Amino acid sequence: MDNQLALLTLCGSVIAILFAASRAAKVMKFSEGNEKMQKISASIHQGAMAYLRRQYRILLVFFAGMFVILAGMAACGFLTWFVPFAFVTGGFFSGLSGFVGMQIATRANARTAAACQNSLNRGLNVAFSAGSVMGFTVVGLGLLDISIWYLLLRLVFKLPVEDITSTMLTFGMGASSMALFARVGGGIYTKAADVGADLVGKVEAGIPEDDPRNPAVIADNVGDNVGDVAGMGADLYESYVGSILSACALGVIAFNKIEAVDRVNAVVIPMILAAVGVLASIIGSLLVRTGESTDQNTLLKALRRGTNTSALIIAVISFPVVWYILGKDFIGFYFAILGGLLAGVLIGFFTEYFTSDTYRPTRDLAEKSLTGSATIIIGGLSLGMLSTMVPVIIIAVCVMAAYAFSGGFIESTRGLYGIALAAVGMLSTLGITLATDAYGPVADNAGGIAEMAGLDKEVRKRTDALDSLGNTTAATGKGFAIGSAALTALALIASYVEKIQQVGGDMVSLDMSIMNPTVLVGIFIGACLPFVFAALTMASVGRAAQSIVIEVRRQFKEIAGLMEGKTDADYATCVDICTRASLREMILPTLLAIITPIITGLILGHNGVIGLLAGSTSSGFLMAVFMSNAGGAWDNAKKYIEGGAHGGKGGEPHKAAVVGDTVGDPFKDTSGPSINILIKLLSMVSIVFAALVVQYHIF
Amino acid sequence: MDNQLALLTLCGSVIAILFAASRAAKVMKFSEGNEKMQKISASIHQGAMAYLRRQYRILLVFFAGMFVILAGMAACGFLTWFVPFAFVTGGFFSGLSGFVGMQIATRANARTAAACQNSLNRGLNVAFSAGSVMGFTVVGLGLLDISIWYLLLRLVFKLPVEDITSTMLTFGMGASSMALFARVGGGIYTKAADVGADLVGKVEAGIPEDDPRNPAVIADNVGDNVGDVAGMGADLYESYVGSILSACALGVIAFNKIEAVDRVNAVVIPMILAAVGVLASIIGSLLVRTGESTDQNTLLKALRRGTNTSALIIAVISFPVVWYILGKDFIGFYFAILGGLLAGVLIGFFTEYFTSDTYRPTRDLAEKSLTGSATIIIGGLSLGMLSTMVPVIIIAVCVMAAYAFSGGFIESTRGLYGIALAAVGMLSTLGITLATDAYGPVADNAGGIAEMAGLDKEVRKRTDALDSLGNTTAATGKGFAIGSAALTALALIASYVEKIQQVGGDMVSLDMSIMNPTVLVGIFIGACLPFVFAALTMASVGRAAQSIVIEVRRQFKEIAGLMEGKTDADYATCVDICTRASLREMILPTLLAIITPIITGLILGHNGVIGLLAGSTSSGFLMAVFMSNAGGAWDNAKKYIEGGAHGGKGGEPHKAAVVGDTVGDPFKDTSGPSINILIKLLSMVSIVFAALVVQYHIF
Repeated sequence: MDNQLALLTLCGSVIAILFAASRAAKVMKFSEGNEKMQKISASIHQGAMAYLRRQYRILLVFFAGMFVILAGMAACGFLTWFVPFAFVTGGFFSGLSGFVGMQIATRANARTAAACQNSLNRGLNVAFSAGSVMGFTVVGLGLLDISIWYLLLRLVFKLPVEDITSTMLTFGMGASSMALFARVGGGIYTKAADVGADLVGKVEAGIPEDDPRNPAVIADNVGDNVGDVAGMGADLYESYVGSILSACALGVIAFNKIEAVDRVNAVVIPMILAAVGVLASIIGSLLVRTGESTDQNTLLKALRRGTNTSALIIAVISFPVVWYILGKDFIGFYFAILGGLLAGVLIGFFTEYFTSDTYRPTRDLAEKSLTGSATIIIGGLSLGMLSTMVPVIIIAVCVMAAYAFSGGFIESTRGLYGIALAAVGMLSTLGITLATDAYGPVADNAGGIAEMAGLDKEVRKRTDALDSLGNTTAATGKGFAIGSAALTALALIASYVEKIQQVGGDMVSLDMSIMNPTVLVGIFIGACLPFVFAALTMASVGRAAQSIVIEVRRQFKEIAGLMEGKTDADYATCVDICTRASLREMILPTLLAIITPIITGLILGHNGVIGLLAGSTSSGFLMAVFMSNAGGAWDNAKKYIEGGAHGGKGGEPHKAAVVGDTVGDPFKDTSGPSINILIKLLSMVSIVFAALVVQYHIF
Repeated sequence: MDNQLALLTLCGSVIAILFAASRAAKVMKFSEGNEKMQKISASIHQGAMAYLRRQYRILLVFFAGMFVILAGMAACGFLTWFVPFAFVTGGFFSGLSGFVGMQIATRANARTAAACQNSLNRGLNVAFSAGSVMGFTVVGLGLLDISIWYLLLRLVFKLPVEDITSTMLTFGMGASSMALFARVGGGIYTKAADVGADLVGKVEAGIPEDDPRNPAVIADNVGDNVGDVAGMGADLYESYVGSILSACALGVIAFNKIEAVDRVNAVVIPMILAAVGVLASIIGSLLVRTGESTDQNTLLKALRRGTNTSALIIAVISFPVVWYILGKDFIGFYFAILGGLLAGVLIGFFTEYFTSDTYRPTRDLAEKSLTGSATIIIGGLSLGMLSTMVPVIIIAVCVMAAYAFSGGFIESTRGLYGIALAAVGMLSTLGITLATDAYGPVADNAGGIAEMAGLDKEVRKRTDALDSLGNTTAATGKGFAIGSAALTALALIASYVEKIQQVGGDMVSLDMSIMNPTVLVGIFIGACLPFVFAALTMASVGRAAQSIVIEVRRQFKEIAGLMEGKTDADYATCVDICTRASLREMILPTLLAIITPIITGLILGHNGVIGLLAGSTSSGFLMAVFMSNAGGAWDNAKKYIEGGAHGGKGGEPHKAAVVGDTVGDPFKDTSGPSINILIKLLSMVSIVFAALVVQYHIF
């Protein structure tokens, strides 16, 4: 039966890709607007492509190097020969997701602006369709990679099922590495351009955002695409695939000794859930439309109609799926899935609560601007740290519930499989949640183009309404990304433990007790990694922004007639500086993430690595929530003031809020989201190098 | 033999107290300066006393309530009847340490200023003597409490030794509760006054620091005393006593089954080491003197001569101590002690490296002020996060070394005892390290008095030199506090595990594996606590500072002639506001620290608590280092600019640096240091409530 179900998954992936293609065709049918708009859009496209080309060139070296290392390990018997290839395909598809998303986003931006000249609904239509391309490409490619590898290993190579899942886990490492590079590189790019443009343009020269006189304005718009689109695509591809693969791997183990159920069924459940999610997401996304009101609530309702319907469909259909495939004795797993879905929604809601200016926390934060930038900074840091409490409680309840419902207190491996399924449940509607998330940067770009092309004020107002809505849905999307990262990382720790037992056999001493000093020291090192990682990426943004500041200042000084709008700025140089800086800066943090678990393992042994993973998952989860929420709140507090509160634009409180927003930029768009990937990559690397570490270690 | 050794410890404590008294007498012999200086000093003294009176009144209620609860638990058989009393004496002595320190500090401030009129060496002499009073009072009272309880329980009540140590551990909970209240309350007070005074005085009104026209200036100086002196005294009392007690408790267990050595010997070793530390510290502190150069290096050398000599003495003498008491087979413990001592020195050095403007990190941070407040904030956060890496590695190496040298890989309890001894080694020279730390606020106050009393510029220059040196030594002191907190917290987790086995017997299922979901969820909750705690305390500072800002603005507006210096400001109101605000704000975070481990235990059981303690220790250690170092670096970057770099005082970079410093204030003086206490209090509370949790829990 499992082969049919895997084929069904393959069908799901093809449907997703076809749907993405149909959305892309729809976008392309819209007019790209006047010549000026086309020209701006083309520059953005070129800049983004230039960045990606260079990034892929660097990554080619990295992936080639890793391929050689993995092949070497396979030759020494530490890995199977499938691993190096799986690693490469994982990276390839992850990168492809980002690439496709960016292709369509840079083509949809001017079209959205043009459509907004017509009507708001038309604008939403274009932008949301572009977002859908991204959403469905990610899930489509993810399921494609998974189902093809599964069928290949099962039907062609006839591997035993536990070898299939453990091989497939390693293409998670490829996807994670790719995602981390893309997120870090893109995140540095977008924030360096943004911060750099703002610091000189808005603060020093006093010209508005997206003003064509600002030499960094194109780089800023390119940044939205390479960071928020290409980076996010690779990121969520990794989350999606990671959650499914870790669930598959744990499924085999959970149903190892149960005769009534073929354990292969436990492997295909996550895939089938994901395939069902594709259909649910398609139905949901067809329901998204709006009228002409720019009122946020009306717009939000339009999107919520889509996401809620999809979630409801999943909640209903997964019940018979579990019943049919695993049997009614194991229906508890259904509640684990439901728990994950619910936890995702709740975390999303509280992320919004803490970061949206319709609620008290962000309004209170905006008020702190009255006493200057120091108090708004303290307030935002405090808000971010405090906000960690709620998701921790939600995840704690979700983990305990998933574990208990799945029968973990009877047989622990089942409980761990339940936790992994909760993550799959949370991400099952990714097709549509990502669409509502990814359309934000398109709207943002459209606003920039409207401004630069000097379109009617009404157009900018419409794109702003779409953009602002995008910020809210982005918060929800972040909630899903963070929550699923925590659950997936926990599942991956369990997979690592299984891997250790598998490669080590009886000779391995597995002492995961907290009182084991190697575990304890591992926890400390692991907990430290997200801090160091956040520090490195923030510092990178700072350095890259500094070089933009210097360049923009230079252009303002040296190019005659620039400030009067008589001469064009030299956009290309800023784009180039951002590209080089962000690519240079992305290497160290990513390598750190790959090397640390290996070195820790070689010194402290596998028990130390388990500690490291537990430490990094807990502290990484907290840091990611803290940084994302603090950044989001600062951003919206600034926008709230710009909307007229506390003296509005230009007043002292606004200046203070801009400082908060600038600090928040790398928080929410570079460091915070990268940490989600980091914690999973650490586990993936540990799993791949498990055999080596079991053989060679000091303690 | 152990009774003689305990008596020796008692002697050590008496010597420490007598030495403190002699230093106090020495301070009082100096002149307090002219009438104006006396008047200012008296106001500061009054304000500080008013605060302490009210604080003690609140704490009386808390301690009475806890006494009743603990007595109730004793009545139900969950605790021995000694516990409620031990709890109270622990709190009492901790509070007394702070009280004595503050008494002398508020009497030494004007005397230091007056002595600086004479010569720098004379000023150092007064300030350092005042610091010594504090240092030796803390160690004296700590050893007094420990040795009296030990002798009482052993000779009078004739308890078995394991009951003695576990009872004594609970007075650690009294000391920790007291310390947390004192640190949080004092920390909020000092930073609310400081931030409030700066925001209106320096930034808005443009008057210099410590200007008598600023209505918050007395509150600011009071704050230095209640936060940096009384708070720090209670804090380090807790650290000192906690490290000794946890080592004693683990010593019993480590030597449980070894016939060759009486396990009582393992209990007295930490006490004897502490007593030796008293003598070493006295010798060291007699070596501290300086000439007339205000050069930082010369001054630093004067202090270092004292601390290094003390450390050397300990390093030499503890070898024969271990050899004589435990026998040469267990000389490995000596290396654990040495490792702790060395780790303390190294963490101190790197703390200085990251926060002193003689090194690159802080200089680079100062340079970031050139592009505004946002970049210096990002830079400082990044610096702080990055700086966590070094202490984590040092602690990791120290833990592994202490564990290995103590024979932990043969018998794990011995390894844990070794880790506890490392903490004792680190804190053995507390008498002098605290003296070099506590003299800082005295010098700071002296500077304030010199300014307000309008003394000669030369005097201020001397007090500034002393103050600035104080910042460096404070960094070293913080390194010791943080490092020892981590080691002690780890030892306390081990003590908790032992306690669980003791109260639960065979019926308790001890599954500390990371793959146990209650442990895992516990880790998440524990890791979250320092974030929430930091958030609450920062927000408290923000709120309290805001009320000061409003009051100061009001006075500037309503009191005619204030700005011209013709009318006196209404200092008392600001003092009162700070007092009320800080006392109100200290309650919630402290209760959170006490209640969370109990609730977690009642829900997740003891395994969940073990997870919670591991999570909070690791993330708390990181947060404490991050916040302290970021705060310290911002402070010194500002001072570096004030020293003439990047345009000096008043320029745009300076304004940006002031924003950084203001954000850093609650980081380094409120939240950061409190977290050190938090992580130990959590363990202490868990230990006291262990029997209850073992009996009643859901999972």
